[in-house]
Order: sequence, then structure tokens, then C-alpha cells
Amino acid sequence: MQSISCSDEEKKFQVRKLEISDKSKGFIELLQQLTVCDSVSDQEFQSCFEEIGSYGDNHVICVIEDGCSQKIIATGSVFIERKFIRNCSKVGHIEDVVVDSNARGMQLGKKIVEYLTDHARAVGCYKVILDCSAKNKAFYEKCGFEQKELQMAKYFI
Amino acid sequence: MQSISCSDEEKKFQVRKLEISDKSKGFIELLQQLTVCDSVSDQEFQSCFEEIGSYGDNHVICVIEDGCSQKIIATGSVFIERKFIRNCSKVGHIEDVVVDSNARGMQLGKKIVEYLTDHARAVGCYKVILDCSAKNKAFYEKCGFEQKELQMAKYFI
Repeated sequence: MQSISCSDEEKKFQVRKLEISDKSKGFIELLQQLTVCDSVSDQEFQSCFEEIGSYGDNHVICVIEDGCSQKIIATGSVFIERKFIRNCSKVGHIEDVVVDSNARGMQLGKKIVEYLTDHARAVGCYKVILDCSAKNKAFYEKCGFEQKELQMAKYFI
Repeated sequence: MQSISCSDEEKKFQVRKLEISDKSKGFIELLQQLTVCDSVSDQEFQSCFEEIGSYGDNHVICVIEDGCSQKIIATGSVFIERKFIRNCSKVGHIEDVVVDSNARGMQLGKKIVEYLTDHARAVGCYKVILDCSAKNKAFYEKCGFEQKELQMAKYFI
């Protein structure tokens, strides 16, 4: 029997930290909507999960689970960089924000970004930054971000 | 007596990892040429140095010391982000690259970026990324980077 009410939006779409059991709830398949993401063995997943977990508050991955389907339908991550600048301050880097293509228009992306931003602020960051495509710029502006610099990349493979 | 030959460019401008004694060699003053960077007490410096050092290969700050003046004249950092995407791969993030205003035009910035890029590649990153202003774009293109996305930021203070 399903104990979660599907009509209770608050229960259904709560942001929480990634759990190891989320692999079987479509977490990797969700990332595949974002970028190249091969299937990962249970062992590889566990190893990566434990490594990221070992960083504690310095690297947090959050998710939203659909309480009805028990599928992961949104995710994002933030890691904290320690700096010498700004009196040995910290910067939060938001990465890998994605919402399931069937779950868009419900402000889930905004919830994810707010959760990650709140975390960065709580651990003492003076700012939080991210990189996005031009088509996602307006979304992040609605989340309170402004464009600052250009992202440059060099690929090894 | 000065044992380092000032005419030996290779000896003078070698890239090495940050050492705790670099605080007294103008490391913080160099960062002040980049951005807001208040003076830091010896204790604060040591605490930050030890925290970053505890990340081992996952967070490296490198410097170039002028062998004649024994001043730090260039620096940059890279930290390694573990990902679930790309078969649990890694991305290198280059930050805080700066060359002393009196030491420009000697390819020191390129040396710093190459050192950090080589480190990211050596530890298994599939790419290395950074954010820069439009005026520095051409420099990073010469270093083999290409523009990909837009950097967005949200400030807490």
C-alpha cells in the first residue's frame, strides 16, 4: 500500500540528499538527460557515492523523488572551494542541475537551486557560482543569479 | 650570498606547489592584484593552508617565485570535482590565476595554466574548466581553451 499521498505536493517534491538506493530509482538515467553518462555498475556507484560522502558538507548532491513513482525527477550538486581570498573565504560551485523532461514547469529546478544556494550560504560561502548555456540564463536570473564571466573549457578526450 | 643565478630563466621561473613560507614572500599581496583579499594573520594562513593541503591532489595551489627577489610573482589553483557523469569521471576547476603586474609578458601565466592543466589530466579529469573576463578570453584560447558556457553568480555579501 502506498503511504504517500500523491496529492500532497509538499511531501512529493521535497528536496533531500542523495541516498545510495537512488541508483535504483533512476538517478543515473536522469543525469543522462543532462550529458554523456554511461551506465554505472553498483560497485562503481558505491565507490563514487562514498568518495563524495567523505567530503561531508563540502560536496552535497541533492535530489527530488516523485513519491508516487518513486523515481528521482530532479537533482543538482554543490561543492565548496576554500580560498585564500576574501579573508580565507569559501565559494560554492553548483553543478549538474537537471529536471526530468516529464516533470518540468513545476519549479523543481528552482527548488534544487535554492537548496544548494542555502547550503553554500550556511557553510559560509561569500558567493555561489555556476555555468550554464545561454538558453538557461533566464532561469538562473529568476533564481537570483547574474551573469559575470565566460566559462572556458579544455577537453582531454 | 645569492646562490640562484638571475640570468638562468629556467631556475628562476619554475612552477612549484605553494609552501607555507610563501606568505612572507608576498603571496597574499599577489592575490590582492586579482580581487578583494584582506591581509591574513599567520594563524589564519596556516589553518587555510592545512585545510587545502588535506585534500591532497584534489586541491593544488602552485606558484612561481622570482629567484632574485624571492617574491611570489605568479599563482593559480586547481581543484578536482568527482562526478557521477562520464562513468564517474572528474573535472578540474582552475581558479585564481594571477601574474604580478611587474612580471607580465614572460609567459608566466601560460606556465601556471599548463601546470594546473597537466595536473588535472594526470589525476584523470576528462576536462578542465575555468571562468574568465572577456578581456582574458584570448589568453586562455592561446592556452588551448575554448569558450563554452556563461558563468552566473549570486553574492551573499
